[in-house]
Amino acid sequence: MLDLLRAVKNGGLSPAEALEKLRFQPFEDLGYAKIDHQRGIRQGMAEVIYGAGKTPEQICGIVAHMREKGARNILVTRLSPQGAERLASESVLEYHPIPRLGIVEREKDQALTGAVVIASGGTSDMAVSEEAALTAEVLGNRVIRLYDVGVAGLHRLLAHLGELAAARVVVAVAGMEGALPSVIGGLVDCPVIAVPTSVGYGANFGGLSALLAMLNSCASGVSVVNIDNGFGAGVLASRINQMPGIAG
Amino acid sequence: MLDLLRAVKNGGLSPAEALEKLRFQPFEDLGYAKIDHQRGIRQGMAEVIYGAGKTPEQICGIVAHMREKGARNILVTRLSPQGAERLASESVLEYHPIPRLGIVEREKDQALTGAVVIASGGTSDMAVSEEAALTAEVLGNRVIRLYDVGVAGLHRLLAHLGELAAARVVVAVAGMEGALPSVIGGLVDCPVIAVPTSVGYGANFGGLSALLAMLNSCASGVSVVNIDNGFGAGVLASRINQMPGIAG
Amino acid sequence: MLDLLRAVKNGGLSPAEALEKLRFQPFEDLGYAKIDHQRGIRQGMAEVIYGAGKTPEQICGIVAHMREKGARNILVTRLSPQGAERLASESVLEYHPIPRLGIVEREKDQALTGAVVIASGGTSDMAVSEEAALTAEVLGNRVIRLYDVGVAGLHRLLAHLGELAAARVVVAVAGMEGALPSVIGGLVDCPVIAVPTSVGYGANFGGLSALLAMLNSCASGVSVVNIDNGFGAGVLASRINQMPGIAG
Amino acid sequence: MLDLLRAVKNGGLSPAEALEKLRFQPFEDLGYAKIDHQRGIRQGMAEVIYGAGKTPEQICGIVAHMREKGARNILVTRLSPQGAERLASESVLEYHPIPRLGIVEREKDQALTGAVVIASGGTSDMAVSEEAALTAEVLGNRVIRLYDVGVAGLHRLLAHLGELAAARVVVAVAGMEGALPSVIGGLVDCPVIAVPTSVGYGANFGGLSALLAMLNSCASGVSVVNIDNGFGAGVLASRINQMPGIAG
Amino acid sequence: MLDLLRAVKNGGLSPAEALEKLRFQPFEDLGYAKIDHQRGIRQGMAEVIYGAGKTPEQICGIVAHMREKGARNILVTRLSPQGAERLASESVLEYHPIPRLGIVEREKDQALTGAVVIASGGTSDMAVSEEAALTAEVLGNRVIRLYDVGVAGLHRLLAHLGELAAARVVVAVAGMEGALPSVIGGLVDCPVIAVPTSVGYGANFGGLSALLAMLNSCASGVSVVNIDNGFGAGVLASRINQMPGIAG
Amino acid sequence: MLDLLRAVKNGGLSPAEALEKLRFQPFEDLGYAKIDHQRGIRQGMAEVIYGAGKTPEQICGIVAHMREKGARNILVTRLSPQGAERLASESVLEYHPIPRLGIVEREKDQALTGAVVIASGGTSDMAVSEEAALTAEVLGNRVIRLYDVGVAGLHRLLAHLGELAAARVVVAVAGMEGALPSVIGGLVDCPVIAVPTSVGYGANFGGLSALLAMLNSCASGVSVVNIDNGFGAGVLASRINQMPGIAG
Amino acid sequence: MLDLLRAVKNGGLSPAEALEKLRFQPFEDLGYAKIDHQRGIRQGMAEVIYGAGKTPEQICGIVAHMREKGARNILVTRLSPQGAERLASESVLEYHPIPRLGIVEREKDQALTGAVVIASGGTSDMAVSEEAALTAEVLGNRVIRLYDVGVAGLHRLLAHLGELAAARVVVAVAGMEGALPSVIGGLVDCPVIAVPTSVGYGANFGGLSALLAMLNSCASGVSVVNIDNGFGAGVLASRINQMPGIAG
Amino acid sequence: MLDLLRAVKNGGLSPAEALEKLRFQPFEDLGYAKIDHQRGIRQGMAEVIYGAGKTPEQICGIVAHMREKGARNILVTRLSPQGAERLASESVLEYHPIPRLGIVEREKDQALTGAVVIASGGTSDMAVSEEAALTAEVLGNRVIRLYDVGVAGLHRLLAHLGELAAARVVVAVAGMEGALPSVIGGLVDCPVIAVPTSVGYGANFGGLSALLAMLNSCASGVSVVNIDNGFGAGVLASRINQMPGIAG
Repeated sequence: MLDLLRAVKNGGLSPAEALEKLRFQPFEDLGYAKIDHQRGIRQGMAEVIYGAGKTPEQICGIVAHMREKGARNILVTRLSPQGAERLASESVLEYHPIPRLGIVEREKDQALTGAVVIASGGTSDMAVSEEAALTAEVLGNRVIRLYDVGVAGLHRLLAHLGELAAARVVVAVAGMEGALPSVIGGLVDCPVIAVPTSVGYGANFGGLSALLAMLNSCASGVSVVNIDNGFGAGVLASRINQMPGIAG
Repeated sequence: MLDLLRAVKNGGLSPAEALEKLRFQPFEDLGYAKIDHQRGIRQGMAEVIYGAGKTPEQICGIVAHMREKGARNILVTRLSPQGAERLASESVLEYHPIPRLGIVEREKDQALTGAVVIASGGTSDMAVSEEAALTAEVLGNRVIRLYDVGVAGLHRLLAHLGELAAARVVVAVAGMEGALPSVIGGLVDCPVIAVPTSVGYGANFGGLSALLAMLNSCASGVSVVNIDNGFGAGVLASRINQMPGIAG
Repeated sequence: MLDLLRAVKNGGLSPAEALEKLRFQPFEDLGYAKIDHQRGIRQGMAEVIYGAGKTPEQICGIVAHMREKGARNILVTRLSPQGAERLASESVLEYHPIPRLGIVEREKDQALTGAVVIASGGTSDMAVSEEAALTAEVLGNRVIRLYDVGVAGLHRLLAHLGELAAARVVVAVAGMEGALPSVIGGLVDCPVIAVPTSVGYGANFGGLSALLAMLNSCASGVSVVNIDNGFGAGVLASRINQMPGIAG
Repeated sequence: MLDLLRAVKNGGLSPAEALEKLRFQPFEDLGYAKIDHQRGIRQGMAEVIYGAGKTPEQICGIVAHMREKGARNILVTRLSPQGAERLASESVLEYHPIPRLGIVEREKDQALTGAVVIASGGTSDMAVSEEAALTAEVLGNRVIRLYDVGVAGLHRLLAHLGELAAARVVVAVAGMEGALPSVIGGLVDCPVIAVPTSVGYGANFGGLSALLAMLNSCASGVSVVNIDNGFGAGVLASRINQMPGIAG
Repeated sequence: MLDLLRAVKNGGLSPAEALEKLRFQPFEDLGYAKIDHQRGIRQGMAEVIYGAGKTPEQICGIVAHMREKGARNILVTRLSPQGAERLASESVLEYHPIPRLGIVEREKDQALTGAVVIASGGTSDMAVSEEAALTAEVLGNRVIRLYDVGVAGLHRLLAHLGELAAARVVVAVAGMEGALPSVIGGLVDCPVIAVPTSVGYGANFGGLSALLAMLNSCASGVSVVNIDNGFGAGVLASRINQMPGIAG
Repeated sequence: MLDLLRAVKNGGLSPAEALEKLRFQPFEDLGYAKIDHQRGIRQGMAEVIYGAGKTPEQICGIVAHMREKGARNILVTRLSPQGAERLASESVLEYHPIPRLGIVEREKDQALTGAVVIASGGTSDMAVSEEAALTAEVLGNRVIRLYDVGVAGLHRLLAHLGELAAARVVVAVAGMEGALPSVIGGLVDCPVIAVPTSVGYGANFGGLSALLAMLNSCASGVSVVNIDNGFGAGVLASRINQMPGIAG
Repeated sequence: MLDLLRAVKNGGLSPAEALEKLRFQPFEDLGYAKIDHQRGIRQGMAEVIYGAGKTPEQICGIVAHMREKGARNILVTRLSPQGAERLASESVLEYHPIPRLGIVEREKDQALTGAVVIASGGTSDMAVSEEAALTAEVLGNRVIRLYDVGVAGLHRLLAHLGELAAARVVVAVAGMEGALPSVIGGLVDCPVIAVPTSVGYGANFGGLSALLAMLNSCASGVSVVNIDNGFGAGVLASRINQMPGIAG
Repeated sequence: MLDLLRAVKNGGLSPAEALEKLRFQPFEDLGYAKIDHQRGIRQGMAEVIYGAGKTPEQICGIVAHMREKGARNILVTRLSPQGAERLASESVLEYHPIPRLGIVEREKDQALTGAVVIASGGTSDMAVSEEAALTAEVLGNRVIRLYDVGVAGLHRLLAHLGELAAARVVVAVAGMEGALPSVIGGLVDCPVIAVPTSVGYGANFGGLSALLAMLNSCASGVSVVNIDNGFGAGVLASRINQMPGIAG
């Protein structure tokens, strides 16, 4: 829309044309679902389909349309094993069962840049961590995984100080007491994206305990995304990692 | 009561006598307040007065009665500066303004045993930490204070590994994200008592964030007391520190 | 880590060696899962596997590796009946269906010391109570079970005053109004570990009612672990029960 | 209204008359406040003024109007000391500062019937307990006060089993863990009215902890009123205590 | 216990005998379950088994033992259709599928006394309402059912003013906005027991909306039991309805 | 903006002009505050100043600027008595202390149309009710006030069925159990705007109890605004009351 | 009831007759369910059956009775596919699977009047949106659907300014951050009905996030219905859309 | 610490020296307060003092010590007017009363780089917005303020599309419904830091409504900091804005 309004302002577009364009529906409507060209993802050379609540048929239909338009590196989140099986019969699919994430026509030899560290507290946080890691990779970022570095075993975290020091951005994933982002935030100078997970039981309340702990972090440079939102953390990490340097 | 029932069981007391004793009011009733001989504290050679909600006159009256009975080392919690001033005019009072805690007729050269570490995240947790520390000291425990060792500055905590290793019990006091007990719980083998504080703002919700984080600690050996309950943590730490060895 | 850092300090280890050791992964990585040598449990001569979220194959694999290293008395928590059946076909397994807990190669004639009382409010709290009791037993503690002694039938609790008086530590398990730890805390002088359970309905809110009641206990010496966390209570009870006496 | 509708039904009143009566405003409107003839209280020979949010002048004005109509035994709840002072200068006032409750023109030698036990956990619950007790007394009930019988000191409660056994209804007032109604509910066969108080700190959340505990009571015959609602408990206790026997 | 202690007091029992009796387990322990002789129910000539969480085999075993002791009018709450089928094959069972409640060997021609009105807001509250109604009936109370008299259709409620006027106690059952007890509380002078139900959706939060509304009722004489606790309301209503008149 | 975009669409405005207009700041910036020409209010011939958080000087300055532009009927919400005193010294002010609302240069003989009923549960809801009523009146609506018609005294509400039947829209204001909108919603066919108030205590939680009750209303045609938002209810009631008839 | 009371007042009905009529049960009772002639819907020429919790047999029975009385345009909400299949075998049924809504004997060529815009944030809100839209249509309103116009893609919303400008009432449906009603409320002058949906995950808490956002809307003219309550929004939108013009 | 451990690793430091350094207290302890050299801030050439909870004397003492060490550009957050007055008498202080923030010895002609946009919903969010803006400026960032661009007046936001398009990072501050970050997130491609404020009333619950809305934002690239945490947002914005470009 920005481009559009600038074009109007610059005279490159008449108001009538602008309004026509505004009315033009940029989503292909397949009846059962609109093809979701996720804004902001596009610049990273990838497309995204939110798989949750869509039938295998619908997902396959959307992928087919995208591929006709020449898309590749298509990310499908929250993709069930059944959906993956169906999709694999029609496309070249790389499927990751733990984060339930599929990548259609993944680009080979994709150049990966920068350094995004994904750190997580326990193996049970792996689904969310991998959703973040694979999202960032598909968007062209070099990812370093530091899993099972929870705060109750500090030596495991301290063994990786080198990787942390080299990070341009850290995604810290944790459930239960959600302390990992605070500890990491005290060790690094780069931005830290905290992802609370719903892992835990009892007074965990579906991730609320970790969420509140992260919002109250006493470390600087920490911000928080929604519970279990590995995808969102991966996209944001990509944006920060790929920041161009400040011009002169 | 235990003694009483045992006496009945052992024949040392008739049921009628037992019931009479049960009916006997072991609290002196001063009209405006009953003298609170805090159970469980007694064995530590100290008496406790909860100062909250009592007028300076009432506190002085209770102290006077206790001293008549020969009590010393009397702990007065939540004692206002006004109450302290009044009390100091009648008794030998040691007053600590930050935890608002007074000690009447403190025993000199009290023997202190064992090792209770009180660790806290920030200087703003000092009121609660000192309430725990002074309570434990009055009950005869040797206390080591490690303040301002919050998890966002790990080097400050790691500089004190020796003290932590020597502890028989650790009281970990923290507000905000409440991560300190988890980190300490991963470093020591002794019991850790976690005390959430109401320090913080925003989504801290009066200490709820720290409380939930501590209950969800992924470290073993951690248990939790109520928000800001430094006194309770001090009493419990004393009980654990002064555990006799297992017979045989 | 403590030992490691002391070794560095004492000159028994060069920094390079220390860092190498820090980097050395003490967990065997089987690909699908890391073998979890639960810290703090080790001194009790037992190993622990958290069974939740692991497939029977994974659990069997981990147990096999542990046994190769000579482990016995291996505790498997949250073990499904299916997992138990599979595990029993490969190892000598003692399986407890109510707390869903398995013990592999349980040591016969294990010496049990001290006195840990596990008290619970109702038969519906038995799963959590037994998780605590068996954990404590496997760690070498003598356990006295007082079940179905809820506060609405005081005579059942008072009939066991002798056992309570002999306890070195009490684990009080209760759902619903969570009053048991307060009542017991007023009867004993030893530490009381309160375990809220999610048993109940309506305004119980998954154990929140019992949790809040226990945190607000007016008795001294009570601390709280997470909802349904029988395992954690058992570990902490063991640490307290096995406290050595204070040296001279 | 019931009488009105019955009169219409029985022909004693025409519909037009009934509607006129319905429209008739039974409240005297003094401009600044309507005189609140509390329904349901009336049969207990007492009138009630909710003092909260009314100026001393307004309260005096309302009392004056009531007395003109011949009222005595007028209960004024939440009456500030200032309001009491002003009111005492114009009426015969009995003022109770702890529950902030005034009784105007209290009937001498009022007959008191039945047996309402008001039990409370600690001295800090006294304001709410006394609001309940005085309300019940003014409504003509014999009240037995058992204060400071909290569950952490069972012997104090058990010393009063005789009074509990004689009660027709018990009002159990408690803050913090709110366990008193459950314990009493297990000891008596009569109805128990539980009153949570906002006394406490930390995770007490303004009385929520006691409220939830009471709603989840495992004892039969317990029901709950709002936090700090001593007045409501007193009115309900009066209704139950004064129940006539079942005819035939 | 009361009787026991009185016997001790009156000399009818030696302390040793009393303690023996206290230690005597009045519950038969069948291994898988203890027979729950619900206190307070006994005087109403009925026995209660909480069916939730028990297998059909366990329930049948408990019933068999009770019948051996001569019990009839045995109430089984939360009884599944499968459990009912099994139980009916061994006993004379009256089963009510909506409240999932069974009555074994129901006494014929049981005398019913007094007047308990059970009023409910909608047909979806019927399960809870019937649990209350049948419980009260089995305990010997005459029950009047006023269902589907929700506040959004006042004429349906007003059509039953006569029944309300004749009640000795009203049980008001409602979900959603929970307003029924307040409206009824303004129409009657007898005690009103409010039962919130979990019926509803959205911001109903499992009955929390109705629970809070009922606790905040502006009508006098209203008290509240736990969400969906029809059984508890029935027991309490029975106690109030069967109150004897005040002596002298 | 709508007009603007239509003008662009209709050719009455060039895009450049449109963008210029968009950039034009329609708010006068006085430095300390921007004059808030409340959108949507304008059509009702009134202006609004939110007084909360503004000093008397700032409010006077804003009023002065508005009057220069010819405004009258200026509503000032949440205006403190101090602010009112100051404002009255410079303008013709009608001040209502209970809702803390001022009207500057109120139009005399303003035509009032339609029928907006404002009903409230108790006198303590009067501040919110009057904020709604006065807002609606200043916007040109005829307002009928039915105060103190709470559901615990149905006869008072039923005495006003005529007024309710004549309403085009009802604003139902209630605290505590928040039942009034449900009862009214069952009596009328027009839209009902429910306003929860923070009046109450205990488990009222600042209006949450009334809010949840209103959202769960079982009556049709009820919608809810924020707690204590009398102003918002007044504006919405005005919009509905002044709806033109459907063309054709 | 209104008509009834007016008749009494006007003399057209004797009180006895009125009471008889009040007692007359206007609901047909089929035993398993009462036929629910939804008040307020009637004037819109439609009948409503709440399908939730009713068996297909019950729904078919209710429909049969309604049709005997001549009803058509019968709305069945929350109708399962199984129920629809059964119902379609007996009646002319139009079934909408996404909102799970059926219309029996839908009137052909029903006149639709006014303009109700249903706007929604995402395709996942479609079930709730369609429940609102179809309800409004069956009640005789012209409905304009603007789906997938969420605030994170403003151009999609701005492309429909014309439709918004023409609306007499807008229903704004949104989950997640619930911002749509605020944005639309700033663009239109007509009433906006906000419907929060439970769509989302993590800290969405079943629609609570959207609900709170909508209650706190900074736009005027916005009110809120319960989470997922598309039916309620449709009914209210119909009432507002069909408001007659103000007389005189 | 990172540097330290690297030095150990690289041989530049012996372990003994490293441990000595670890033990060395880098904070000057003034007795009443430790000088807080905020980690992570240092690189931005500024020092920070958290003023909350410190007396004017303490703040002046800390500033004096910092200045002795040559510090300038010292940020003092949450500084009361009294503290500012005192501090200004001893130092060159620039004080901002709305965000209660002081800058001591502010560097003149400080070079500002990049582009940080601070956007806020209303004038009442200005305290938090200015805390973020001034923090970012002192840390060397060029800041563009877009205040009063709330979502209920979209034209005000759209008038600033140019500034938004030029931003390297946006801080979006909003209370009430918290929708601003979602709308901005849909317009820009750079990271968006959302700051909920406690501005609002009723169901705002101290900023909870805005917090939940922001966590549930449907726009990509949005993360959240704690309620009212303008300082934290400013620090994080600085880190992102000053990211160097990716090498190679």
